[in-house]
Amino acid sequence: MSDRPLIALALGDPSGIGNELAIKALSDEETFEGADWLVIGDRRMWQLGEEQAGTALELPDFDPAHFDRAAFLDLAHAEMDAIETGTSSMAGGSVALANFDLALRLAADGAADAVCFTPFNKHAMRLGDPSYVDEIGFIKRAIGTDVSGSEFNVLDEVWNARVTSHVPLSEVAGLITEERLLRAITLTHQTMEGAGIANPKIGVAGLNPHAGDGGNFGTEDDNIIAPAVKKAAEKQFRVDGPIPSDTVYVRALKGEFDAVLTMYHDQGQIAMKLIGFDRGVTLIGGYPFWIATPAHGTAYDIAGSGEANPGATIKALQLASRLSRRSNPDGFAEAADRLANVRALAASARDAA
Amino acid sequence: MSDRPLIALALGDPSGIGNELAIKALSDEETFEGADWLVIGDRRMWQLGEEQAGTALELPDFDPAHFDRAAFLDLAHAEMDAIETGTSSMAGGSVALANFDLALRLAADGAADAVCFTPFNKHAMRLGDPSYVDEIGFIKRAIGTDVSGSEFNVLDEVWNARVTSHVPLSEVAGLITEERLLRAITLTHQTMEGAGIANPKIGVAGLNPHAGDGGNFGTEDDNIIAPAVKKAAEKQFRVDGPIPSDTVYVRALKGEFDAVLTMYHDQGQIAMKLIGFDRGVTLIGGYPFWIATPAHGTAYDIAGSGEANPGATIKALQLASRLSRRSNPDGFAEAADRLANVRALAASARDAA
Repeated sequence: MSDRPLIALALGDPSGIGNELAIKALSDEETFEGADWLVIGDRRMWQLGEEQAGTALELPDFDPAHFDRAAFLDLAHAEMDAIETGTSSMAGGSVALANFDLALRLAADGAADAVCFTPFNKHAMRLGDPSYVDEIGFIKRAIGTDVSGSEFNVLDEVWNARVTSHVPLSEVAGLITEERLLRAITLTHQTMEGAGIANPKIGVAGLNPHAGDGGNFGTEDDNIIAPAVKKAAEKQFRVDGPIPSDTVYVRALKGEFDAVLTMYHDQGQIAMKLIGFDRGVTLIGGYPFWIATPAHGTAYDIAGSGEANPGATIKALQLASRLSRRSNPDGFAEAADRLANVRALAASARDAA
Repeated sequence: MSDRPLIALALGDPSGIGNELAIKALSDEETFEGADWLVIGDRRMWQLGEEQAGTALELPDFDPAHFDRAAFLDLAHAEMDAIETGTSSMAGGSVALANFDLALRLAADGAADAVCFTPFNKHAMRLGDPSYVDEIGFIKRAIGTDVSGSEFNVLDEVWNARVTSHVPLSEVAGLITEERLLRAITLTHQTMEGAGIANPKIGVAGLNPHAGDGGNFGTEDDNIIAPAVKKAAEKQFRVDGPIPSDTVYVRALKGEFDAVLTMYHDQGQIAMKLIGFDRGVTLIGGYPFWIATPAHGTAYDIAGSGEANPGATIKALQLASRLSRRSNPDGFAEAADRLANVRALAASARDAA
């Protein structure tokens, strides 16, 4: 058994800062030492990233018989002429999709313990796959599940979870049910405990202005959210709410809550981006393995300049390592014992690309 | 004619920091010099405020025949035994309601050019008047109009306006119409021009996550907001949008926009409170006179301690002065000429209290 998880790191949009971020993050000794790494991408793009980063990272080509700590799985699938630094393209999107798809399959297959990826460009992803809507939808298809995982944003000491995410605002109120709230509270609690935060304090945001103001501005806060919070408290979760959504983050930042459970996408995102989204990590839970990525985007404006800040990527990689260890207290199968199947999965991914 | 507007300053909840704030703000020379002042309240509460503030402010009792720069209109209506510093009460709410009511009537009557008030406590207001919902509703009733004024929050250099405000979240999407958007853009533009911000740049927030993401997460951004912004631009307004609501404030803070037009209450309030609501001013426009107040609350926790920071109150009073001057470029009738009616209005207010 090994004490290190094996993490599949899918390189994101090759026109952005993703390769540079991966190189810089894995050059960080503490990050590198936290796991074994299987980096998935196109070697030529990686070399370009090394030039951009001004750093080379010794990373041998993947060989299942001689895996030692880290390797590069070269899909050699990038249409190099069609990919330009700083511009979204179908070719770039296809590369990112194939990398992510393979990483997910490796984790679903048990070859990897967690998945990380560097930023995607949504426009390029859709050029590469017109049916692409968001990461959750893609994950479900790649690993063949009906389970919609939950997205958390982790920024400094505050976690953000959502009851609803990529849905029209007009549908949000109808989706706020006691069952969904209890599920979200439970998942948030479990995920944070998994991350080493014992018995986290969760602030539950209200839905309506002033959390409904006693029914003057909507009834869901009193009739759905308050009873759900009460039930969760009876189950020994540390919860408080509904708290008016314009003060819940102010209070969380003061240390009152470890996590904020928001009712809809922008309720949390407005706050997170103002606080400093670029430093944050997006974590996807609810699957048999963890998925983590920096919360920021491809930063086309600085792509190729070598100025990309790997801080959030380092946090994402370290969080995936830490969570995987918590989820597998007995340790991990030796990498060599479970990488035999990787080549076949990679070959089918390469064929599909 | 005078070059100074006459501002009716209604003292807010007497259990909070309102009297202290008014005393401190009017002790600021620049603020005091910007207008003539008619302070409305109960003299005994004012004296208590002076003790709390550690500052006395020479303010003669109102006498229409001898008005000179500033006076105190004593309604002598406070039930002193029932009002406790730091606690909401029916007696406190009644005092604040009567002060505000009279200030509004004076402005509607032409005796005052603008209304300012120090913070209310909503719970106390409802104890004092169970039908009280919010300021806008109260104003409509006090001055007898069907017009719902618009509330702006002004924080540092960024203005916030809303298309909808105190309504359930479930009703927001249905209230987003091209007509409402154009009206809000026009009012924001005119108000800011009135405040001396020439041709302000207005960022219009999207309604749905990622501003609808091309229709994947809702259609209102593409079908209603985008066409309204286009029409507004054709009318020479400087507008941009719909902009995802989780980035519009980040961009405004960088100087890209002078104002943000939000679609619903919390879209703006989450951002404003994180940025530093306590420093902001709430401004109500759409009536023949301006209404301004500090954006923060009664701060019961520090009431009586003398620690209240008058910064936002000073900004509110100065903004009301400046806007009144802009709205009345020819100057103002001399205070003495239009204060004859004040006593009668005050007497009826005193009777009603």
